[in-house]
Amino acid sequence: MSNNPNREWLIVKRPEGLPQSDDFEYRESAIPEPGEGEILLRVLDAIMDPAQRGWMDPAGNYFEPMPLGEPVRSVVIAQVVKSDSEMHPVGQIVSGLGAWADYVVAPAGSVGPVPAEWGHDLSAYAHPLGTVGATAYYGLFEVCALKGGDAVLVSGAAGGVGSLVGQFAKIKGCKVVGIAGGPEKCKWIVDELGFDGAIDYRATDDLSAAIGEHFPDGLDVYFDNVGGETLEAAIDNLAIGARIGICGMISEYNQTHNPEPGPKNMWNLLVKRARIEGLLVADYMHRSAEGLAQINDWINEGKVHYKVDVREGFEDIPNTFNCLFDGSHDGKLMVKLADPV
Amino acid sequence: MSNNPNREWLIVKRPEGLPQSDDFEYRESAIPEPGEGEILLRVLDAIMDPAQRGWMDPAGNYFEPMPLGEPVRSVVIAQVVKSDSEMHPVGQIVSGLGAWADYVVAPAGSVGPVPAEWGHDLSAYAHPLGTVGATAYYGLFEVCALKGGDAVLVSGAAGGVGSLVGQFAKIKGCKVVGIAGGPEKCKWIVDELGFDGAIDYRATDDLSAAIGEHFPDGLDVYFDNVGGETLEAAIDNLAIGARIGICGMISEYNQTHNPEPGPKNMWNLLVKRARIEGLLVADYMHRSAEGLAQINDWINEGKVHYKVDVREGFEDIPNTFNCLFDGSHDGKLMVKLADPV
Repeated sequence: MSNNPNREWLIVKRPEGLPQSDDFEYRESAIPEPGEGEILLRVLDAIMDPAQRGWMDPAGNYFEPMPLGEPVRSVVIAQVVKSDSEMHPVGQIVSGLGAWADYVVAPAGSVGPVPAEWGHDLSAYAHPLGTVGATAYYGLFEVCALKGGDAVLVSGAAGGVGSLVGQFAKIKGCKVVGIAGGPEKCKWIVDELGFDGAIDYRATDDLSAAIGEHFPDGLDVYFDNVGGETLEAAIDNLAIGARIGICGMISEYNQTHNPEPGPKNMWNLLVKRARIEGLLVADYMHRSAEGLAQINDWINEGKVHYKVDVREGFEDIPNTFNCLFDGSHDGKLMVKLADPV
Repeated sequence: MSNNPNREWLIVKRPEGLPQSDDFEYRESAIPEPGEGEILLRVLDAIMDPAQRGWMDPAGNYFEPMPLGEPVRSVVIAQVVKSDSEMHPVGQIVSGLGAWADYVVAPAGSVGPVPAEWGHDLSAYAHPLGTVGATAYYGLFEVCALKGGDAVLVSGAAGGVGSLVGQFAKIKGCKVVGIAGGPEKCKWIVDELGFDGAIDYRATDDLSAAIGEHFPDGLDVYFDNVGGETLEAAIDNLAIGARIGICGMISEYNQTHNPEPGPKNMWNLLVKRARIEGLLVADYMHRSAEGLAQINDWINEGKVHYKVDVREGFEDIPNTFNCLFDGSHDGKLMVKLADPV
């Protein structure tokens, strides 16, 4: 093992807008040695996530910026290959923050074991049984305070979080409509995931009116992955006591210095005694075992479906990452680097 | 009594912007007779409230519009002079919806008795011990979920609701800063009401920076009576887990057809896991006795102060009403029509 080179993608420049190839640099280096209280991880899967784009920006955002000249930070599924910690026996499968690299050293406790005993393919722990699943679960049931029978709208509905949110709400007997881009995604969320309806935002001139047609009595819950005009259109269509959870604003990730105008209809929050609340899944990670166990049951009962888009090719990681922003992926996007041993 | 004419101000046109004199018509008529299950009220005080401006608009807003050709709807303090209901003995002092008139007929139960036994001047039941007090109490403790020690910002801080909100938060050991217009109001909330600081929005170029100077660690609570740019400036300055209660948007009452752009910084709600929620006091009226009893105790302990601006002159009511919108009043504005008997 120690004869193999350790492949790494470094970030060497802060991207302007969409990342370009000269923002990154490929390097082969020695496999690092863990120090006291550290572990050496073999990365099995690198999970592509829009949040990484935020971490590439300079400080001033709430994200801790990635240090230039170091491997690109990434959520990973990994296996412990050397350990100076009783918390992490060699062979343990973990998830948490790693990098675009074959091997990374991490402090003990900075990653957590995945419930590999549940027997799913490892990709499941990157999607419904990982941070994505916890985000959907706690965002919907805590921040949006979902009740059975609620009228629910989800944006980014064909994405990782959005597709789970819609299915969880259907399990609770809600009417669920998703907003997604293009007829294929819209067909998928209705035919395969059981959403009651879909709005193709690319084919819709008046998003507010389209929402109103699906929900003439208004929305009880809007789960927002998008922000911007979509949020404003949802605020137009609230029922009394509505709850909006803000999980992401992918429309704004590449324009943080020049934000869109905000919703002009905040007045409607008063009229409808409605609430908008931001969600950061980190606030719920100490409770995540409960949510993930419930999601695992639902998967085993055939009630929750998910799609992963597993690519190969370490050399292509920067290009694969950009597929997040042009929609040219089909399910939660990850790059497979190795199998567990 | 029945020889006196019943003076009334009718609404005969829907105002455009600020109400004009030809929007109203003065009339003298016979004192009406209560029918089955009704009561006849002698209006003692007509309370001037910005919400009335909303009720003058056509339907389409959430307010029930005032019917044209009928007396202008107003919250009143009144005394029961004839009664076909055991709920309302003759002589009872009540508050609720009445009109700009000496006498009005109301259905039994549509107004509620005020706790006159507490022995305050009747004006108190129009301000801290009425709807204004309940709005401040439930808005602050329920919608904003105030905790002791919170960092609290209030806009419209010299107004009825705002001045009570700030004092309630001080009682709970919070740091409180108010936003008000002009040096006199700012001096009053600090020197007389005990606020920790005041921001004179008329003398401030950069409201966001001014808030940041008072609260370098951010706001836990913002109680919003104003909306618009003030709301955006507050969202710039949130602490983690902040709660914003939207009680009113007086900046927008006269421009509902051409609303201001909304807050551009909604993203910060996610960063700070913060919440914005609308408040309508009607949702809490079934519990108001509890809040008003607490406020009464605080008044008797000298911890809550309030100011009423009691005018006389039935003929001047339309002009007096417009003082709400140019700031030329000093305390909760009301017009006294009669003394109780």
